[in-house]
Amino acid sequence: MPDAEILTEARVREIIQEEIALAFKKDPAKKHAMIIASKGTLDWAYPPLILATAGAAAGMEASIFFTFYGLNIIHKDFERKLKVSPVAHPGMPMPLPMPDIVTALPGMTAFATGMMKGMFRKKNVATIKELLDVARETGVKLIACQMTMDVFDYKESDFLPGVEFGGAAAALSEARKSHVTFFI
Amino acid sequence: MPDAEILTEARVREIIQEEIALAFKKDPAKKHAMIIASKGTLDWAYPPLILATAGAAAGMEASIFFTFYGLNIIHKDFERKLKVSPVAHPGMPMPLPMPDIVTALPGMTAFATGMMKGMFRKKNVATIKELLDVARETGVKLIACQMTMDVFDYKESDFLPGVEFGGAAAALSEARKSHVTFFI
Amino acid sequence: MPDAEILTEARVREIIQEEIALAFKKDPAKKHAMIIASKGTLDWAYPPLILATAGAAAGMEASIFFTFYGLNIIHKDFERKLKVSPVAHPGMPMPLPMPDIVTALPGMTAFATGMMKGMFRKKNVATIKELLDVARETGVKLIACQMTMDVFDYKESDFLPGVEFGGAAAALSEARKSHVTFFI
Repeated sequence: MPDAEILTEARVREIIQEEIALAFKKDPAKKHAMIIASKGTLDWAYPPLILATAGAAAGMEASIFFTFYGLNIIHKDFERKLKVSPVAHPGMPMPLPMPDIVTALPGMTAFATGMMKGMFRKKNVATIKELLDVARETGVKLIACQMTMDVFDYKESDFLPGVEFGGAAAALSEARKSHVTFFI
Repeated sequence: MPDAEILTEARVREIIQEEIALAFKKDPAKKHAMIIASKGTLDWAYPPLILATAGAAAGMEASIFFTFYGLNIIHKDFERKLKVSPVAHPGMPMPLPMPDIVTALPGMTAFATGMMKGMFRKKNVATIKELLDVARETGVKLIACQMTMDVFDYKESDFLPGVEFGGAAAALSEARKSHVTFFI
Repeated sequence: MPDAEILTEARVREIIQEEIALAFKKDPAKKHAMIIASKGTLDWAYPPLILATAGAAAGMEASIFFTFYGLNIIHKDFERKLKVSPVAHPGMPMPLPMPDIVTALPGMTAFATGMMKGMFRKKNVATIKELLDVARETGVKLIACQMTMDVFDYKESDFLPGVEFGGAAAALSEARKSHVTFFI
């Protein structure tokens, strides 16, 4: 009956360290991702949705808290609201380098938005609509920030079905449990 | 005397797993929030202060590391320095849609700044001054990045009372202990 | 032979708590930093490189995932690609305050880029080239995002030697193990 043998303290510590090493591999924080989406342009709508859906695909519990301009992403009218401005984006690959005064001209935001949509379509990258669908199908929690909704005069009915509503405290209480925490 | 009964290895492992599950619920990283504030505009001054004060209100130890343009937020002259530019913010809700060339005109930054302050005031959102006061009263650590202070020729006396000073290493050593880590 | 004494459950729990407290101090997540670099301008090239190299200097395993405009930072032609635009940066300390319409004029991006390089050089801050060298020498993993490489028509040979290639899933699998997770 080996189970009945007397365990020494040294043996007990050994067992503990074994169990702890295992436990850290299964650290529950590894399964949680909490992303804050604060930008309301087409380009910055991608990273939160791609990271959260990749997390869900890997079995993680992912949530996105949409605040400030990020509310655009889950607005019913997101297709029209999400644009990309070439101004102040000296890092944006453009067919031709342009001074800011040109990128500020009327029509350039529409041009840059169309150009970016075309680049993504040509490379078979999912659209924002498709990523939003995947997010909801795979259980990514989409939470609209109540404070900024109030500031910008949005109503709950302005947002896509499936969107939840919460404040900074709710966002933080999820972030506290998560290794993956990004402010985008 | 049940305490004196011989513990089997199986029973010891059971006790260990019980204690580990409890320990992960009290994971010290859940109590730490480390936020880097790098933007120096009125809109981006809100998220670090709101998240850190919400964390402190929930009993967390929160610190904000102000670097690059984020130094504006804790500058004695923050009221004048924190503005909001409508350029390159196609996501900003404006009374009327405007092309970038119009939002770039002289006076538009002052107009957008005033508009945003009005929206926040109307909705009873705390001002930056109030959030800075709450942060200091609730023990949120406000740390100015020494390297960028030096680059931008700031002196310690340029900053609000209560501000501490440190480098990237100090910021990281706090971030390593924190589940909540945001770069804003 | 004190080791052979019978351990009570109370004593075992005491030992476990001792070991757990030690284990949390050595939480493996404390040694991992995962930074996403998504901006392609001179100013925003600094924070990911400074934080990652500071992490490596402190004995951490640091990786940077370069995505969207952040791909500029590890492009062979990074010296020419990394510029700083004064537009929409009302937080940028400029010698003279300027309205956006002036900062949008041709030449102002070159002027602001030169000014910033000068400020960093004068203060003996490392250049991007030097930080990239330190990163590679200290084992910081530099990973280019394959999806955005594809969208922007970059080839593997466009990037600096030592750069690795991976997708969002790879980035997340590193982030899940890390306390330090920043999206810059």
